[in-house]
Amino acid sequence: MGEFELIERYFKRPARNDSRTVLGLGDDCALLAPAPGMQLAISSDMLVEGRHFLSTVDPARLGHKALAVNLSDLAACGARPLAFTLALALPRADATWLSGFSAGLFALADSHQIELVGGDTTQGPLNICITVLGEVPGTGTQHQALLRGGAHAGDDIYVSGNLGDARLALAVFRGNLSLTTALFELARTRMEQPTPRVALGLALRGVASAAIDVSDGLLGDLGHLLRASQVGAVIETPLASGLLAAAAHPDWAAQGIGTPAQLDYVLAGGDDYELVFTAPAAAAAAVQQAALVSATPVTRIGRVRAAAGIQLLDAQGHELQCNLASFDHFKS
Amino acid sequence: MGEFELIERYFKRPARNDSRTVLGLGDDCALLAPAPGMQLAISSDMLVEGRHFLSTVDPARLGHKALAVNLSDLAACGARPLAFTLALALPRADATWLSGFSAGLFALADSHQIELVGGDTTQGPLNICITVLGEVPGTGTQHQALLRGGAHAGDDIYVSGNLGDARLALAVFRGNLSLTTALFELARTRMEQPTPRVALGLALRGVASAAIDVSDGLLGDLGHLLRASQVGAVIETPLASGLLAAAAHPDWAAQGIGTPAQLDYVLAGGDDYELVFTAPAAAAAAVQQAALVSATPVTRIGRVRAAAGIQLLDAQGHELQCNLASFDHFKS
Repeated sequence: MGEFELIERYFKRPARNDSRTVLGLGDDCALLAPAPGMQLAISSDMLVEGRHFLSTVDPARLGHKALAVNLSDLAACGARPLAFTLALALPRADATWLSGFSAGLFALADSHQIELVGGDTTQGPLNICITVLGEVPGTGTQHQALLRGGAHAGDDIYVSGNLGDARLALAVFRGNLSLTTALFELARTRMEQPTPRVALGLALRGVASAAIDVSDGLLGDLGHLLRASQVGAVIETPLASGLLAAAAHPDWAAQGIGTPAQLDYVLAGGDDYELVFTAPAAAAAAVQQAALVSATPVTRIGRVRAAAGIQLLDAQGHELQCNLASFDHFKS
Repeated sequence: MGEFELIERYFKRPARNDSRTVLGLGDDCALLAPAPGMQLAISSDMLVEGRHFLSTVDPARLGHKALAVNLSDLAACGARPLAFTLALALPRADATWLSGFSAGLFALADSHQIELVGGDTTQGPLNICITVLGEVPGTGTQHQALLRGGAHAGDDIYVSGNLGDARLALAVFRGNLSLTTALFELARTRMEQPTPRVALGLALRGVASAAIDVSDGLLGDLGHLLRASQVGAVIETPLASGLLAAAAHPDWAAQGIGTPAQLDYVLAGGDDYELVFTAPAAAAAAVQQAALVSATPVTRIGRVRAAAGIQLLDAQGHELQCNLASFDHFKS
């Protein structure tokens, strides 16, 4: 199968009628027509086998995830997705893999009503690079994008969904933990098919003071937000809920099923693709309204303080010692 | 060196004041503000070691080339470059490589007054994925982009610069050909540092009826243009000039220096990053004016005909037999 046949068979689809795409796949460039009063939001993410996904992953889930992690960046900016490009390096043109991958990719694209407008396909070690384009209301330097730098001392800190689920699944894959099949399947889906919080990001425009998505772990990503805002934070633990809370339940231990390093997974597990954001205390009701309209669970986890750094408090309000340096995933 | 230090050290630069970038590197997304009456042109290209460049290539030249092949797509659409994103997978963070690569990348970016607005850095087999954003005047479905589908029977066919130079260098690298050092260095520069024909593309807006850039070889890429336009072409050979003509000069053969497969290199060598475009006969003077204002050599190489396919004529006007199937680089 040649490159052109591959594109034709797996990636070319009828143009949408409801998009802003003047010209999609098939020429040297795509053309997008932003609506009047809109600015373009752009983000690129690259996924490499072994680092961002396991070689055993279902290709449909991988197609979903490759787009989801990019949409998560748009969500963190409060941008509405418009279109995306896909550059794909493949060791070989495998029909089963391609048909699964494109099905997963387009299922998520369709649910956000966005179109694949361009890209590249080449032979090489498996590598998936997606660039997403979205729109945010704005004129000149005035815009409604949610940035990292807008948090103020006294703001509340919130997180969407549950943190640590993806890390829980990874621990099982690595053989460091056992879970019941049902619990593992739920955790695995959270790792392999994260839900980009696009609807929440849109609902938080004009409500949140700052936002970022959690890809590398809560402490690391919240740290970026706090440094950009020149503030610090107090985080109240325990944060665990959902799968992690279930996995940590004493019953599992009693049955000889391992319990995860709960706090580590929540604080620094990564691969969560939840939003962590700040909002003034006066906006608390508006935050709950945003959670409601976007059908996204949102939990208050602490507050912004003027002093730099992140202070962790346990359930009794005592300070937890936590070596933040250990949460830099990128040190080589 | 961690990811953030790497970005800070090699890729973060002061924001330009003359750009349309509302928000550049450092948040979840970049923000671009297209000028009123402008549409966004978008293209992505991925470069893989061994397939798109040799492992021995000077990193500065590679940085240039990675951006150049993307700018070439904007050129083929007549779009003015605005900004780009870079996603980079690297086996390791090598300071010498990174400093060379970023220097070459930014030298070309600066010459086009465009800014790196986002991207990703990760560990993995060397892979460079760039997405370029440009602008073209347009409103709704009306725009001035040069597309592949606008050629009509009777139009002249032109090509910029010289074709086959990159293939000439590749033949030397592969040990299939010997050249004088001076000639090899010139050919190598054409392979490793192609010149995207952005100025010509801009000058051809409203003049050319169709355009495409030559990345896979003249016959293959012209074939895409002709199929999109539902026409065919008559190409007059010999086309060789410049380096290829010099390399094919009888003097070299007399000195025992190999001569290249001239016609093959010109017709299907690839990696040229020249523009092939069509224009009505009445626009011949306007084409020469576009060549002049963009300081880009342009040569008429044939004409569009109604019948499908490409007919090749030799210097005496006799038809050359040419198996087009052999020019599909993508068959696996």
